[in-house]
Amino acid sequence: MHIFVTGAAGFIGSNLVDELLRRGDSVLGFDNLSTGRREFLDNALKSANFRFVEADLKNTETLTASMQGADAVFHMAANADVRFGLEHPRKDLEENTIVTFNVLEAMRANGVKVIAFASTGSVYGEAQVIPTPEDAPFPIQTSLYGASKLACEGLIAAYAEGFGIRSYIFRFVSILGERYTHGHVFDFVQKLSADPTKLHILGNGLQRKSYLYIGDCVSAILTAMEHARDKVNIFNLGTKEYCQVKDSAQWIAERLGVSPQFNYSGGDRGWVGDNPFIFLDTQRIRLLGWSAQRNIRQGVEQTVDWLRANEWVFSERSGR
Amino acid sequence: MHIFVTGAAGFIGSNLVDELLRRGDSVLGFDNLSTGRREFLDNALKSANFRFVEADLKNTETLTASMQGADAVFHMAANADVRFGLEHPRKDLEENTIVTFNVLEAMRANGVKVIAFASTGSVYGEAQVIPTPEDAPFPIQTSLYGASKLACEGLIAAYAEGFGIRSYIFRFVSILGERYTHGHVFDFVQKLSADPTKLHILGNGLQRKSYLYIGDCVSAILTAMEHARDKVNIFNLGTKEYCQVKDSAQWIAERLGVSPQFNYSGGDRGWVGDNPFIFLDTQRIRLLGWSAQRNIRQGVEQTVDWLRANEWVFSERSGR
Repeated sequence: MHIFVTGAAGFIGSNLVDELLRRGDSVLGFDNLSTGRREFLDNALKSANFRFVEADLKNTETLTASMQGADAVFHMAANADVRFGLEHPRKDLEENTIVTFNVLEAMRANGVKVIAFASTGSVYGEAQVIPTPEDAPFPIQTSLYGASKLACEGLIAAYAEGFGIRSYIFRFVSILGERYTHGHVFDFVQKLSADPTKLHILGNGLQRKSYLYIGDCVSAILTAMEHARDKVNIFNLGTKEYCQVKDSAQWIAERLGVSPQFNYSGGDRGWVGDNPFIFLDTQRIRLLGWSAQRNIRQGVEQTVDWLRANEWVFSERSGR
Repeated sequence: MHIFVTGAAGFIGSNLVDELLRRGDSVLGFDNLSTGRREFLDNALKSANFRFVEADLKNTETLTASMQGADAVFHMAANADVRFGLEHPRKDLEENTIVTFNVLEAMRANGVKVIAFASTGSVYGEAQVIPTPEDAPFPIQTSLYGASKLACEGLIAAYAEGFGIRSYIFRFVSILGERYTHGHVFDFVQKLSADPTKLHILGNGLQRKSYLYIGDCVSAILTAMEHARDKVNIFNLGTKEYCQVKDSAQWIAERLGVSPQFNYSGGDRGWVGDNPFIFLDTQRIRLLGWSAQRNIRQGVEQTVDWLRANEWVFSERSGR
């Protein structure tokens, strides 16, 4: 199979590229390197089956030309910044919704009939049913990020119906692990490296969140695509547990061997639109034979270890 | 109150403008006249409380300037063409999703804190629960039109959460009545005027559809805005019944006094993405004291009468 991967130099994209190459697929990776890192493709670039195109998905001409001959598209590129959406509302519209439309149009132009899409559990807003199944009550959006991903899901499903495209929509909890460069573990490790005596935590620390290890995420995506055959296949991806922010902070401190004082900003939300309880029902993907190999604590610890071994991701990180 | 109405020269928009003026509000109507008709504002333009701006919502500068001083926005402008979405996929994205983003940004710039939005029952896709309540299971989109309206709903809810805007989202069944210029009654009356001996009907005629009379639609919108006070207020609007396409065709023929032979294209859908059964649970709006004053047949007949008295809407209609 020849696979086209957007966001190929990103956290999830680059891990997916490595696994696809390992399985023997040929891969064209597409990334504008706005948040992706070329270093994450070091391994892939050694393969004769990999080609990298550095370009923006807004450049529809390059996008369409690069996709030629693809059997499937893995659309992982996104503005993944759920927290700062209100500071630049246009970003989620342009980098998520409109860009997904561009990808679908390029698929149509090239006759590509399969898409896998990185959505998010944030599309459930503040879910009324927890653990939240894929067919939870019609949600009300609480973040521009979630709203943009919902818009992408809608576009993909409508293209699936209208143009005979088979689609796989994955609603992720937060993903952790190697090449993770964005989120609370990143922030906490960075802060504790600068000052191991204290850690400022947004909210009251009691927010309940879910995480999944990247290796488990990639294997879930590939499992779903091997077994599910509907026009629109939607899967929650996560573990069977959740944790509290304060627990996660404690695990990180322990793994780093530090004993900081925790200070809380207070309130049950870290920021406007923060969801105080995220926990997805993952029975649907587990019924296909997939299960997570690492629990949340193991995922957090593996992430801490990777960040410590790759401190360059802090120093060279592109600004928001 | 000073109200800003987009799509003011359209079917629903112009009826809303007339009612707002009747109630004593001042209104600025905004419309690019791409499908709206200046004639629908003949009455409004006689009022000193009405001003009309002919401009496109893509023109964000004019939009933002025109909205100055508004207390509330009624966003009725849209590409309302559910059937031909697949012929021009970009249209729903640009004229619905992106334009709604522009409206929200203009509200933010002007400090406008209330929005009413014309959504659609099409956001439920092919609903699993019928009659379909507002919190139906998370739907899968089947049309680009529904997907674009869902994207708009998500944007509006996220702005409501993030920027303290109170929002009213109305999921309409098909609306009928005075100034109706688009949909099956329009098409059937037009065809039967040309040839009263036969009528070609898409699908097998057994599709079950719901309709609401425009006067009832406008009163429902205003009732909801008087009584509901959540951040995000979502209401289905429709009657307590549905009808079949073949029934509706028969009522139209009878009202026109003709006896055509009905020919069916066959299949349980009129076109790709057509929904064979639309019926919304409207208990939520009825609990606020609203009820429909006309049933579906009365709405259909009133529409036929209006179309016959206004044949100019056929001859001068702008092309697709």
